[in-house]
Amino acid sequence: MKFTIAQPALLNVLQTASKAVAVRTTKQVLTGILLQAEAGRLIATAYDLELGIRVEVPADDVNMLSVQEPGAIVLSARYLADVVRKLPNREVSVGVGSNYMTEIRCGEVEFHLHGIDAAEFPLLPVFQSSQSLQVTSEHVRELVRATAFASATSEVRPILTGVHVELGTGRLQFTATDGLRLATRWIGSAEAGESAWNVIIPSKSLVELAKILPDDDVPVQLYVSDSHSLFVVGTTHFYTRLIEGTYPDTTRIIPSTHRTEVAIDADLMADAVDRAALIARDRENHMVRFEISGTSIQVSSSSSEIGNVSERIQANRMEGDDLSIAFNARYVLEALRALAADEVVLQFNGPNQPFTIRESGAENGLQLISPILWR
Amino acid sequence: MKFTIAQPALLNVLQTASKAVAVRTTKQVLTGILLQAEAGRLIATAYDLELGIRVEVPADDVNMLSVQEPGAIVLSARYLADVVRKLPNREVSVGVGSNYMTEIRCGEVEFHLHGIDAAEFPLLPVFQSSQSLQVTSEHVRELVRATAFASATSEVRPILTGVHVELGTGRLQFTATDGLRLATRWIGSAEAGESAWNVIIPSKSLVELAKILPDDDVPVQLYVSDSHSLFVVGTTHFYTRLIEGTYPDTTRIIPSTHRTEVAIDADLMADAVDRAALIARDRENHMVRFEISGTSIQVSSSSSEIGNVSERIQANRMEGDDLSIAFNARYVLEALRALAADEVVLQFNGPNQPFTIRESGAENGLQLISPILWR
Repeated sequence: MKFTIAQPALLNVLQTASKAVAVRTTKQVLTGILLQAEAGRLIATAYDLELGIRVEVPADDVNMLSVQEPGAIVLSARYLADVVRKLPNREVSVGVGSNYMTEIRCGEVEFHLHGIDAAEFPLLPVFQSSQSLQVTSEHVRELVRATAFASATSEVRPILTGVHVELGTGRLQFTATDGLRLATRWIGSAEAGESAWNVIIPSKSLVELAKILPDDDVPVQLYVSDSHSLFVVGTTHFYTRLIEGTYPDTTRIIPSTHRTEVAIDADLMADAVDRAALIARDRENHMVRFEISGTSIQVSSSSSEIGNVSERIQANRMEGDDLSIAFNARYVLEALRALAADEVVLQFNGPNQPFTIRESGAENGLQLISPILWR
Repeated sequence: MKFTIAQPALLNVLQTASKAVAVRTTKQVLTGILLQAEAGRLIATAYDLELGIRVEVPADDVNMLSVQEPGAIVLSARYLADVVRKLPNREVSVGVGSNYMTEIRCGEVEFHLHGIDAAEFPLLPVFQSSQSLQVTSEHVRELVRATAFASATSEVRPILTGVHVELGTGRLQFTATDGLRLATRWIGSAEAGESAWNVIIPSKSLVELAKILPDDDVPVQLYVSDSHSLFVVGTTHFYTRLIEGTYPDTTRIIPSTHRTEVAIDADLMADAVDRAALIARDRENHMVRFEISGTSIQVSSSSSEIGNVSERIQANRMEGDDLSIAFNARYVLEALRALAADEVVLQFNGPNQPFTIRESGAENGLQLISPILWR
């Protein structure tokens, strides 16, 4: 294998692929990046058997890619990315010699890195006759941002470490829950009528996907097989395994009625909860209280060791019963951040029932939070 | 105690003092900040018995300080600074009630924090008939930056965890060494003739001092007693204990002759050593080699597991014998960063002797590094 390419283009490819490199593994080949040079294109692949990223670079005037000798090699991701990062912004030449020893040359600089036979690298999942849907990168980012944080981090129930992705009834919906709070968000989809499917994608993988999506809004093609999902953005392929099992039926825990409804400025509420959370931060449940009396909300928290805090904020609108309720401040702050709304609407069914937070005037999802029962 | 003050002014005082708050201690009072309100001024003090910072704020039109009732209280630094940070940018009122419970009020927000009796707070060291010297904050920052990094981090020889600060023979000189490299830097001082002293100040304290020095160049008054040093910047007092003992005589290890002298662009050398260090980074000694042949320097490193790197760079000037020498790349990179020079001059006495790096054309200090003997 032998090719030349502009240093920034090679670095960019390696940085994107690096996100799927195995960190803790005893299989050395999984800590590497597979480089494949073919006529007119370079492909970099990393695959830790859970997440796979394949970046393809076609030769163009900017990246100056030129393949002199097709071939493939696996190089340690940890060294390769750092080596290329520290090279000057010039043409880089990469060539494989005997015993997989790979020469990386750039101006007066000459690195030799031990490589691994490309034949040892695991094959990416194959998608045959899979179901597919076209969305946009902006939508994917929004769906992930609004839901993935709410999934469980503990592996006690592996299903809850994933995001439930459903296509059907005219929309694509992402839902995540850790058992104490739930986040769901959907977008309308014209293609949704044609096919219906529901899968569970690991949250961690979706968060990584959101990171490598380009900043500008581009089409994303989503494929689903029995065992894997695949997001294709331009020439970048993002593979993730699916979590097996049946996701719990979350629709039945979302209340359809309410006894108290409050509309309030989201920043005003977040600032008050954030301050109150200071006093609660060393308690495991981060307990903050709302005492809602008309449009006036008393936000408070207390700790026998540290002290207490209390603040009165004004809602824009309130309907229904007055209410005292206690909740985990971290859950509420994360929900408000996920909504990224100017005004939010809260709906309560008394102090012991889960309450919801929605973006005011938007019908695209909700955040549901279990209260802390009075103690 | 009762006073009001603008939120940004109170936050600023707390953030500066916080640097001296004890982190790991069983004495709760040391984790606090002592607030003292007196007629026309507020004083915040933190003192972990090694490092002490006392910030005084005289009332002015910007900070809007108004002391209604003089007094003092100790409040948990961890909570106090975060509480004030999260308050709106308005007037803050602080008042102590019964049982040291302290009310912090700002608009609609009301915190109550448990305080500790100010009488429990340790007294700062007293400086009587101490020796003193006036320098500038720019000079202090430069002396610390150029030397403190080279001191030892291990407590095996406590003396080497400090910086040797000497006044005499017309200059103020800072020296640090960990036994394998040495950094020294001095400034001329007109006051140096009058008194001579030499003390050892903990490196960590000097690094904290450098952080709180204001960005603009202001006078700094330095006092030294038998047990402590004190840096006074405006109304901020920075106390540190001295390390007891006699600092080793480092002048005798600084070579007065050389067999090879090289002048080279500092960035060119740093980039090449940084690249070569990649291959050496998993070895404890970070070994990189220089092969100097005339003005040409071959920079290289190799590892049986990872591979090797080699690069030829050009010196601006070379005098004396050709030379092969191996060194710890981290030491050389830190020395180059400390010098912050465009061109540096390296002087060698063969492959087994310590070599020096100086700023080209400047007579204000040097970096000395022990080579790695060929293995």
